[in-house]
Amino acid sequence: MVTSVESVAARAGVSVSTVSRALRSIAGVSAATRKRVQDAADELGYSASPAASRLATGRTMTVGIVVPVLAKWFFGKVIGAATQTLRDAGFDVLLYELATAGQRSRFFGTVHLHGRTDGVIIMALQPSREELESLAAQGQAVALLGAQAQGVGSVSSVSVDDIGAGRAAARHLLNLGHERIAFIGIRDDEDSTLGGVPPLQRLLGYREALAEAGYGQDDSLEQFDENSVAGGAAAMSRLLVAEHAPTAAFVASDEMAFGVLKVLRRSGLDVPRDFSVLGFDNHELCDVVDLTTMDHEVAAQGHDAARLLLNTLQGGSPAVLARPARLVVRESTAPPRDLRATPAGPGSTHSAGHPGNL
Amino acid sequence: MVTSVESVAARAGVSVSTVSRALRSIAGVSAATRKRVQDAADELGYSASPAASRLATGRTMTVGIVVPVLAKWFFGKVIGAATQTLRDAGFDVLLYELATAGQRSRFFGTVHLHGRTDGVIIMALQPSREELESLAAQGQAVALLGAQAQGVGSVSSVSVDDIGAGRAAARHLLNLGHERIAFIGIRDDEDSTLGGVPPLQRLLGYREALAEAGYGQDDSLEQFDENSVAGGAAAMSRLLVAEHAPTAAFVASDEMAFGVLKVLRRSGLDVPRDFSVLGFDNHELCDVVDLTTMDHEVAAQGHDAARLLLNTLQGGSPAVLARPARLVVRESTAPPRDLRATPAGPGSTHSAGHPGNL
Repeated sequence: MVTSVESVAARAGVSVSTVSRALRSIAGVSAATRKRVQDAADELGYSASPAASRLATGRTMTVGIVVPVLAKWFFGKVIGAATQTLRDAGFDVLLYELATAGQRSRFFGTVHLHGRTDGVIIMALQPSREELESLAAQGQAVALLGAQAQGVGSVSSVSVDDIGAGRAAARHLLNLGHERIAFIGIRDDEDSTLGGVPPLQRLLGYREALAEAGYGQDDSLEQFDENSVAGGAAAMSRLLVAEHAPTAAFVASDEMAFGVLKVLRRSGLDVPRDFSVLGFDNHELCDVVDLTTMDHEVAAQGHDAARLLLNTLQGGSPAVLARPARLVVRESTAPPRDLRATPAGPGSTHSAGHPGNL
Repeated sequence: MVTSVESVAARAGVSVSTVSRALRSIAGVSAATRKRVQDAADELGYSASPAASRLATGRTMTVGIVVPVLAKWFFGKVIGAATQTLRDAGFDVLLYELATAGQRSRFFGTVHLHGRTDGVIIMALQPSREELESLAAQGQAVALLGAQAQGVGSVSSVSVDDIGAGRAAARHLLNLGHERIAFIGIRDDEDSTLGGVPPLQRLLGYREALAEAGYGQDDSLEQFDENSVAGGAAAMSRLLVAEHAPTAAFVASDEMAFGVLKVLRRSGLDVPRDFSVLGFDNHELCDVVDLTTMDHEVAAQGHDAARLLLNTLQGGSPAVLARPARLVVRESTAPPRDLRATPAGPGSTHSAGHPGNL
């Protein structure tokens, strides 16, 4: 039922290695030979498999993708995009979910990848210098997505200017006239492998923008929870009982922002009349619930990480790519109510935490 | 930097194979030996890797997961759940996205998996009998999720009673008094590998319920599009220009239903006052937009499929598991407006397609 590479080689009168190289368009095979092999393969109903390619190149033709969690919108997007780019280049994908610190230490602490993968894309978790050097010792090419290369020169990385994005998000709310702006961020759990650089940078950008506008840091306005609808809802619920309630929130993920919208609606608060919400991701459902957000082109990040890894596998130099994020305005952000009720006078006369704001 | 299995074996005074078996809790190692090996491993800072386990068992300790598309909520959920169960059992996961008919025929048509995986979980695409037999010939254990075993006895499967679920969804809308109920389904693209049995069965259940209630099939009420927010929006837009507009829709995925809600809102139609929407999945965001839906416990399906596959890998018999779905009532479904405006008289006096319904 299954045609072997050997029978194609026999029919074309070439070696198994040549068959694999010809069918995968690897250099070093003449056009005439390539055609003879292709004809033999067509006649026998054979198509090139990565296994055949492995025979020819000594490579595993497999790339590992490492994520802290699979069942999240962001990871579905980036894994889908990276896998598409890798598969177009003939690579299989081994998927690693390092959901706990134990899984993480087992992954980086043993000779796990040698002979299984040619390289690995690590997404949204920050490897230490030692972990990156362990991967290099296992012969792995490495590309990072949403993490820093820690000075290890052989590592490529794709990241977003998350500090700039956090600053831009907060500035949009400041420019609308908000004076008490909350930050709802992703909690860095103790037994989590997330160790997320981007969420922290979004917080730093928010703090910078507020400081530049003359507002001191107010810990009660910074709430952290798990990256989910439920987490966003819980964080917003805590803000609703604050002594001086905010009039707007910058939320570090859209999924959390959806939970924020839910709690506001259930509280009878209108968005954006009573409260402005600004998310992060540009999730497809932002359009459904009219959520203003920061778009960081998630799928493009996945394609880029795969492209950089493939480039180093083909002998190219590692590269560091920083992508911008941009504001996408929908209907969840507006000036605070007291600035819209009457034409705004000098905004600075409003006391922070005006009790009528919520 | 990395401790080898050989050094652990030397320190414990046992073979490499025994080390691997002991650290992976495989039968045939005495408690005393297991402890001696574990102590040696702890002293040397060694932890068992799948590679070590492969040495001991001759297995790849790897399972393939095959999906038609990665960047969808459903697949993130089921892959995440299945991967968690597989990893807890010491297995790695190779991920295959068969997005086109070409990728599909290459996957099933060549000796691809032999020596790479011990088994494969195929999700939401229906393999033919020949394809299943090709996998068996490659020594693969097989579990299906959302597909039928085609009489191949060695194949396990997990499915949902989608006909019953489709019927229940339509009945809920009929019981509320709706007489023109649309079905918005997932389009089976030509160059798609989806070949989805569940979406078709949801349609059949809907048709059965309508027929039982005395309504003939009306093709104009059945709209199909891609499984996305945009697809749902496009399908609903077509229903809005129907000669006899429906008053309710059963939508075969929540992501499409979110698009339906978007179009209705932009049209100035109130849900559920002017139009009822019932989705399928119980997506986390149903709670945010108050979408009534059918819950088919997606994560549990993924866990079950992995569990059945692991069971056959350990010598157990293949099993077929059918799970029920249940209605989750939120605020997107209600009686049609004309039944609520005045206390309902005999509902049968309403003409189908009453022009005031929309």
